[in-house]
Amino acid sequence: MVWRVSEPDFEARLSRYHVRVRFGETDLMGIVHHAAYLGYFEAGRVEYLRRRGIDALSWAAQGLHLPVVEARVKYRRTARFDDELVVETRVAKVSRVTVDFTYRILDLADQQLITEGNTLLACVGDGHKLRRIPADVVSKLLGPELSPRAPNEV
Amino acid sequence: MVWRVSEPDFEARLSRYHVRVRFGETDLMGIVHHAAYLGYFEAGRVEYLRRRGIDALSWAAQGLHLPVVEARVKYRRTARFDDELVVETRVAKVSRVTVDFTYRILDLADQQLITEGNTLLACVGDGHKLRRIPADVVSKLLGPELSPRAPNEV
Amino acid sequence: MVWRVSEPDFEARLSRYHVRVRFGETDLMGIVHHAAYLGYFEAGRVEYLRRRGIDALSWAAQGLHLPVVEARVKYRRTARFDDELVVETRVAKVSRVTVDFTYRILDLADQQLITEGNTLLACVGDGHKLRRIPADVVSKLLGPELSPRAPNEV
Amino acid sequence: MVWRVSEPDFEARLSRYHVRVRFGETDLMGIVHHAAYLGYFEAGRVEYLRRRGIDALSWAAQGLHLPVVEARVKYRRTARFDDELVVETRVAKVSRVTVDFTYRILDLADQQLITEGNTLLACVGDGHKLRRIPADVVSKLLGPELSPRAPNEV
Repeated sequence: MVWRVSEPDFEARLSRYHVRVRFGETDLMGIVHHAAYLGYFEAGRVEYLRRRGIDALSWAAQGLHLPVVEARVKYRRTARFDDELVVETRVAKVSRVTVDFTYRILDLADQQLITEGNTLLACVGDGHKLRRIPADVVSKLLGPELSPRAPNEV
Repeated sequence: MVWRVSEPDFEARLSRYHVRVRFGETDLMGIVHHAAYLGYFEAGRVEYLRRRGIDALSWAAQGLHLPVVEARVKYRRTARFDDELVVETRVAKVSRVTVDFTYRILDLADQQLITEGNTLLACVGDGHKLRRIPADVVSKLLGPELSPRAPNEV
Repeated sequence: MVWRVSEPDFEARLSRYHVRVRFGETDLMGIVHHAAYLGYFEAGRVEYLRRRGIDALSWAAQGLHLPVVEARVKYRRTARFDDELVVETRVAKVSRVTVDFTYRILDLADQQLITEGNTLLACVGDGHKLRRIPADVVSKLLGPELSPRAPNEV
Repeated sequence: MVWRVSEPDFEARLSRYHVRVRFGETDLMGIVHHAAYLGYFEAGRVEYLRRRGIDALSWAAQGLHLPVVEARVKYRRTARFDDELVVETRVAKVSRVTVDFTYRILDLADQQLITEGNTLLACVGDGHKLRRIPADVVSKLLGPELSPRAPNEV
């Protein structure tokens, strides 16, 4: 089980990203529709990559893609319209061809855990064939954010 | 104003398509979220094209695309989770580079009008430059469905 | 691991539902966006319930809801715009307060497996407190479709 | 035609809001799917209201809702994954029971116009009956943001 990273890496392999729940992301139960969280995870992951100098678009231009091959979500509490959420994204494990991201989504106001989960991504070339993740990308994936941020910044 | 087609063409330039409202398409007002209707229009339009032998995918393979350049929706009544809706799609007008589709969405159960609207699509090549719509596509767009359907079939 | 139901129950606890991939469900990789599958699962689940006489709306009117508390998806192959998919929904397990649904999504044309997964739903009352699933609902959940269907019907 | 507000009110009846295009909001043409813009308009509108002390949630608790009854979008340029967009929201007109919002979405990087449009919202009570917009809400709708912002702030 590779769900959690060990403590020393905790702050290095973490990025935080804010999302505010949109009206259209709710459903008739009055809560955020469960599929919307995969979009929040994705937004958190893109930000994690960006802050480490990994640009999904220029990567795609080289014929490399990172489709999601497995996803898991546990819904702990409900979030509602207009709530401000914090998406915590971490890299739990990198293999030769996959990256396992884990996520925790917290309510910004009270820091309660809303959802947690993970997504396993595979590196593929054009034609969806598996490709080894380039070494420089691996070190960026496992490294800290490039520009240090102030402690209270998100 | 080219909103309505003239009566003789009414049945020729019309296709009907069923959608059932999904849970995730509702919002916390308990009704279908207004953006979802653009997806229903799109599903109706794809079906309209398919039934006239226009395959969006093979078209894309030739470097032709039909992005939406203008959309208008009037919301007449609310639709709710699990409602069965009929999307009526018509071609109102075809110009050298654009096609104007109009839509009426009805409740299948009572035939009440839920929404109506139109979308103007432009024909573009790769690089999003305007392209003349090929003559054979124009005649398909303005023609009837290729396989005749029984009166009660949708 | 309760992922699969035992063979004798296989046909009883199964419903099939068709979806056609909409344009707006694809992403810039040209494939169905991974979050869209949770919507397909949901559509399959609603149909499973409907065919056993369980109406989510009348249930909600009694103050009972079935939110998703856990979801898992494995993406085996890519699906693309306009593909016709079959969602196979089964009930894997019913506990006092939860129902575990499993899904397989197949390409209608070649019956290849596209995705599989499960969603755990909890029965809650207003205020999101856990409620015992009523006994008559349990027997419907574990039973066959109410109206027998011809073997080739979906 | 009430599309534009007169110049003196320009800054008062305007709020700006940033969105970053999510991966799942693109489609297989590689551009933002046209329905996604209604979600961006909505996010801009909610922010416009919030900055004038109008809280949609507490409003709903009083049995008042503002469903969209008409929407119009003109797509000028394409936006792509990861683009940062600015949603400019203005109130063009308030009647006894409706509010007409207009929007311009700009690319943050080069300030090019991406889309523009408007949405007409109707004030309804529970049961979707038209209700007069309360006088204090009208003056907030037509007024400036409550907390003055620095010129370069968004």
